[in-house]
Amino acid sequence: MEKEIGIVGAGSWGIALAYLLRNNGHKVTVWSRRQETVDKLKAYHGNEDKLPGVILDDSVVFTCNMEEAVRNKDLIVLVVPSAHMRETVKLMAPFVDGNDEHQQIIVNCSKGIEEQSLMVMSDVILDEIPGCQVCVMSGPSHAEEVGKGMPTSIVVGAFDKETARLVQNVFMSNVFRVYISPDMLGIEIGAALKNVIALAAGIADGYGLGDNAKAALITRGIAEIGRLGMAMGGKFETFSGLSGIGDLIVTCASMHSRNRRAGILIGQGKSMQEAMDEVKMVVEGVYSAKAARLLAEKYEVEMPIVTAVNQVLFEGKSPAEALNDLMIRDKKIESSNLDW
Amino acid sequence: MEKEIGIVGAGSWGIALAYLLRNNGHKVTVWSRRQETVDKLKAYHGNEDKLPGVILDDSVVFTCNMEEAVRNKDLIVLVVPSAHMRETVKLMAPFVDGNDEHQQIIVNCSKGIEEQSLMVMSDVILDEIPGCQVCVMSGPSHAEEVGKGMPTSIVVGAFDKETARLVQNVFMSNVFRVYISPDMLGIEIGAALKNVIALAAGIADGYGLGDNAKAALITRGIAEIGRLGMAMGGKFETFSGLSGIGDLIVTCASMHSRNRRAGILIGQGKSMQEAMDEVKMVVEGVYSAKAARLLAEKYEVEMPIVTAVNQVLFEGKSPAEALNDLMIRDKKIESSNLDW
Repeated sequence: MEKEIGIVGAGSWGIALAYLLRNNGHKVTVWSRRQETVDKLKAYHGNEDKLPGVILDDSVVFTCNMEEAVRNKDLIVLVVPSAHMRETVKLMAPFVDGNDEHQQIIVNCSKGIEEQSLMVMSDVILDEIPGCQVCVMSGPSHAEEVGKGMPTSIVVGAFDKETARLVQNVFMSNVFRVYISPDMLGIEIGAALKNVIALAAGIADGYGLGDNAKAALITRGIAEIGRLGMAMGGKFETFSGLSGIGDLIVTCASMHSRNRRAGILIGQGKSMQEAMDEVKMVVEGVYSAKAARLLAEKYEVEMPIVTAVNQVLFEGKSPAEALNDLMIRDKKIESSNLDW
Repeated sequence: MEKEIGIVGAGSWGIALAYLLRNNGHKVTVWSRRQETVDKLKAYHGNEDKLPGVILDDSVVFTCNMEEAVRNKDLIVLVVPSAHMRETVKLMAPFVDGNDEHQQIIVNCSKGIEEQSLMVMSDVILDEIPGCQVCVMSGPSHAEEVGKGMPTSIVVGAFDKETARLVQNVFMSNVFRVYISPDMLGIEIGAALKNVIALAAGIADGYGLGDNAKAALITRGIAEIGRLGMAMGGKFETFSGLSGIGDLIVTCASMHSRNRRAGILIGQGKSMQEAMDEVKMVVEGVYSAKAARLLAEKYEVEMPIVTAVNQVLFEGKSPAEALNDLMIRDKKIESSNLDW
């Protein structure tokens, strides 16, 4: 069952997924915005800057023509930075099928919360293409490893089971295991907000805390993201799954994570701006921290770690003071769902 | 509210807890089985072999007299290896108060499943001292870090909330945060079986799998331990908490873990026996793997990672084959609680 697949976005994750999907026997077209980038992609048969060493075969088409990438494709895989999601979807919209019998499936692989609207990415997509068949994919998946064919497991969330099964069948291979879930919102909330906790774990590392504190931060961090996610309509199980704790574990273990590296610098006493200048790239966790705090206020959920990260990032609170406040706050039951 | 506390067991965790409890202002007596060990403990004011650098103050009493350690104490903290639990509790039993008004509280900190009976440790304690007030404590807590006063968070489970609150108050400090929970069984199952997953994560490391696969193993590993734990009566939330995923994260990140080190050797192609010989210590995960498989059969729970670990350890299956079988088994929903 070979499918025609358009991949919108040619960064490391886009190329890694092109590699996987091509190996699974599908016909792949990769879109990038600028002709210049497309020329470089064609010359290398991949993205030499962002995913060196992964060479796609001749059958993979590169284009900056959105119509060529999207029209009549069975699946459209969206892998653009979350800040560019809305404008990219606007470009796509004219070429995506409406609610007809052979509806195209859009697989969103981008993680983030839109800054102004506080929407998750699938809602941004639905906002621009009402009634489209959108689903989401997330999990612990460094592109570098997927591009080398190293074993990886992720989760796909969809509104209906048939769509989830179809996407599962398209992506799954003997090195890429796909689980399915109905909880799209939980998957996207966990994916978008985990970077706040990765930043906190980095701060803990930089400040010299040990493994005990870091494991507790990760565990309690995903617990509070789960509390928020449940208030928004997500399911607890999802935050304990591949797109929640799984993705957070891989992020907190890796020096590739910009969030962790920026956190380490802040833990060592640098300001947020100094840390971002030194890491020289966008640190998603800084934006997610703001979004998480706004969502916590909107849904009236207590999020002590998110609050502490915001205080350190934006209010000049020292990591030492933030830590102390976290340790000595009210004595708690571990899970508010479980009482005597 | 100074308490009189007897700590039964003088290994690294016993000494670290003695240090914490003494700093919290309690009166501490530490028991060890042999006079010779007690003499060394007294000379060093701590355990020089197992927790070097942690020196307890003069007020801490060391004894091999169980009556001195246990009689009239407010709290008894049990920290012996799980294989010695039943015989140690038999020694304690004559000196523990019965069901009177000022009942002593026994805090079990030992992790494991009794080999013959498949009982968790608190059930072994209740089996030998029927009607005693037992509770459990677990979480990501390297003794080395607690002994240096580094921030740590754990969970205490008890049958009633008052007991949990009391233990929380006794242990909590500005570097040791204690959460409480009614789910004793969930805490003990997670603590006892996490080492199977640590062993699997070590095998993955040794075999050369990447961060993606390891994060997936940890996430799916705790998911299957949770499935078993729920079948036994534990609560899902607990396996996502400090005593479940939290403790597993700390174990899988640490080269101090014998389970992880043994796993790495097995992943590199050594047999289980060769690995255990090289690590030169008891590898709890090997016993937990057996216990987990027996429990999975008894409660009819599917545990693919536990099964794979058992096949590699005891049936000569290669890690490569076990991995392949895990990747290509049936296509699944991520959480069986969540379906469409």
